[in-house]
Amino acid sequence: MSKPYVVGIDIGGTNTVFGIVDARGAVLASSSIKTRKQPTVEAYIDELYTELTKLIEVNDAVGKINGIGIGAPNANYYTGTIEQGVNLPWPTPIPLAQMVSEKFNLPVAVTNDANAAAIGEMTYGAARGLRDFIMITLGTGVGSGIVINGQLVYGHDGFAGELGHVTVKRNNGRLCGCGRRGCLETYCSATGVAQTAREFLEARPGEPSILREMPIDEITSKDVYDAAVAGDKLAHDVFEFTGKILGEALADFTVFSAPEAFILFGGLTKSGELIMRPLRDSLEKNLMPLWRGKVKVLLSELKEADAAVLGASALGWEAKFNNLPQRY
Amino acid sequence: MSKPYVVGIDIGGTNTVFGIVDARGAVLASSSIKTRKQPTVEAYIDELYTELTKLIEVNDAVGKINGIGIGAPNANYYTGTIEQGVNLPWPTPIPLAQMVSEKFNLPVAVTNDANAAAIGEMTYGAARGLRDFIMITLGTGVGSGIVINGQLVYGHDGFAGELGHVTVKRNNGRLCGCGRRGCLETYCSATGVAQTAREFLEARPGEPSILREMPIDEITSKDVYDAAVAGDKLAHDVFEFTGKILGEALADFTVFSAPEAFILFGGLTKSGELIMRPLRDSLEKNLMPLWRGKVKVLLSELKEADAAVLGASALGWEAKFNNLPQRY
Repeated sequence: MSKPYVVGIDIGGTNTVFGIVDARGAVLASSSIKTRKQPTVEAYIDELYTELTKLIEVNDAVGKINGIGIGAPNANYYTGTIEQGVNLPWPTPIPLAQMVSEKFNLPVAVTNDANAAAIGEMTYGAARGLRDFIMITLGTGVGSGIVINGQLVYGHDGFAGELGHVTVKRNNGRLCGCGRRGCLETYCSATGVAQTAREFLEARPGEPSILREMPIDEITSKDVYDAAVAGDKLAHDVFEFTGKILGEALADFTVFSAPEAFILFGGLTKSGELIMRPLRDSLEKNLMPLWRGKVKVLLSELKEADAAVLGASALGWEAKFNNLPQRY
Repeated sequence: MSKPYVVGIDIGGTNTVFGIVDARGAVLASSSIKTRKQPTVEAYIDELYTELTKLIEVNDAVGKINGIGIGAPNANYYTGTIEQGVNLPWPTPIPLAQMVSEKFNLPVAVTNDANAAAIGEMTYGAARGLRDFIMITLGTGVGSGIVINGQLVYGHDGFAGELGHVTVKRNNGRLCGCGRRGCLETYCSATGVAQTAREFLEARPGEPSILREMPIDEITSKDVYDAAVAGDKLAHDVFEFTGKILGEALADFTVFSAPEAFILFGGLTKSGELIMRPLRDSLEKNLMPLWRGKVKVLLSELKEADAAVLGASALGWEAKFNNLPQRY
C-alpha cells in the first residue's frame, strides 16, 4: 500500500529544486540547494539528504514518503544513471538512482528533465487527458518528452526524445554542444535566439536596432525580447526566424507520432505571440494536408518552478527498490 | 476461444493478395485478384468474397477463420476506413472494415500497408524479439511502421508513421504527391532513384553512362541498378546520393524513438550494398555520438509477397466485430 507522499527532485545546471508532493499533485513544501556547490557528487547527495530530511521533518512527513522521482539532464530511466556529456561538475556516469536510494532508504526512479516535465504536464497540466502529445522545452537548450498512447517514450536504450537534436540545417549549420551541426536547439533555444540576433546584426549593418546599444556578445534572448516588445524590427525578425524553424520541425515531428498537441514549456515561451504566431503559421504551412488545422500548440499550464518537481515526483509513485524499472 | 486460422489481405495499387494463415504464421494457401478490375468498391469486395471463399473451402477452413486483417494504403486502424488521397479507383473514404465484415460475417481490422509489414516483421521476421524498431518500406513511395515498446504507433488519429514525408530538402525540394516539397520519398523511393538518375544525367552532360542509351523518361530504378552493377559510375553515384539522404533521415528518426534497429523492406533493398554501404556510412556520421555503432540496419527476412499478407493477418487475431479497435 502506498504512502501518501512522494518527493520530486529537479536537478538543474544551477539549482536543485525538491518538493514533497501529495497524490493530487499539491506541492506541500519545497526548497532548493545549489547544484554546483559541492566538490563531489557524494557531498552533493549528503547536502541534499540533510536539506530534504529537514523539509520532511518540518512537514510531518517522516515515514510517509512512498518514493523519490528525479529529473536530471541526461538521466536514463532504465539504468538510473546520469550519462556522459552533461553540464555537471562531477565525473559521469553517476549511478544517481542507486546512490540516492541507498542514502534515503527509499525507492528512486530518474528520468531526464524534459521527460519529467512531460509527465508533470500530463499528470497536472495542459496535457491532462491527452494520450498523444509532445512536450518541447525551450530553455538554454531544446528538450522533449514524447508521449504515445499515454506512455512516455524511452526507446530501446532510455534516450529517446532528443528532438532538440534533429538536424534542421543540413549544410553549414550552427555547431551544437553534441558535436554535430545544424541541430534544432542551436536555433530555437534561448541561446539560439541570441545567436540569431548577433548574426542578423552583422548581416544587416545599415539597419538601426536597439540591440546595437549593447556589446554584441552579451546579448541574451531576454534582450531580444525586450527590443521586440519596444518595436525593434530586427529583434522582431529574430522571433519570426525562430518560430519559422520551430514550426517546420514540429510539422516533421507530426508525421512521426501524429500527436494531438505540442506543449511548449520554458523561458522562450514567455515571448508569447512574438514566437507563437510565426510558429503556428509555419507549422500549418508545413504540415501534410491531412493534419492541417488539427494539431494544437499549447503552452504549459504549470509554473516553471513546479513543473519539473511535479513531473519528477510522479515517478516516485512507481519507483522500485532495485532502481531498475522493470521494462518487460 | 479463437479459431485456428486468420485471413490476411494486402490491397496494393495493382494486386490484392490474400492468404489463410495459421497461428505459427504459416501461409496455408494464398491467391490474388486485380485491385482495379471492378468499377465499384462493392463489386471489388464481391469478387474478393467469391475468390476468398473458394480458397477457404478448398483448404477445409470453413468455420475456422478467427478474423480478417487487411493492409491497405491510407487505411486507418481506428476508423476502419481508407481515407482520401490514395491511388485506388473508387471514391474515398471507403468504410473498408465495415464492408468486409458485413460481407464475410467475420471481425475485421485494417491498417496501412507499411504498418502491416512492421507487424509481419515483428511477428515472423527480422524484428522478432525487438520491442523498439522502425520499419522503412522502400517501394514506389517510402512508408514506415514504428514500433515502440512492442506496440505499433498509430498516434492520435491513426495516421502516425508517415516518415516518407519528413522534409529532407527544405528549399527547392522535389514536388511530392502529398502536395509539399522535399519529402524523403521523393528522393529515397524507386521513383526517387529514377529521378535522381535523370537529374545526374542532365547535370553531368559530358560523362558517359549506360543510362544514356535509353530514353531518359523511361529510366527505372531497376535500370539504374543494372547500370551500377555493370560498373556505371553515374548510376553508382545515384545510389551513393540516395543512401546518404536515407542515412541522414534515419539518424534524425533515431533521436525520436531510439530504436534498436531499422528494418528495410521493399524493392530498393534489392540493390544491396549499392545502397546499404552509403546508407550505413551516412547514418553513423549523422547519429548523435551516444548512438554511434549501436543502431542496427537490417533487411526484411520475409518474402516480399508474404510480408504484407502475414502482417495483415496478424491483425485478424485481435479483430473485433464493431470494426473499431478499442483504444482506451
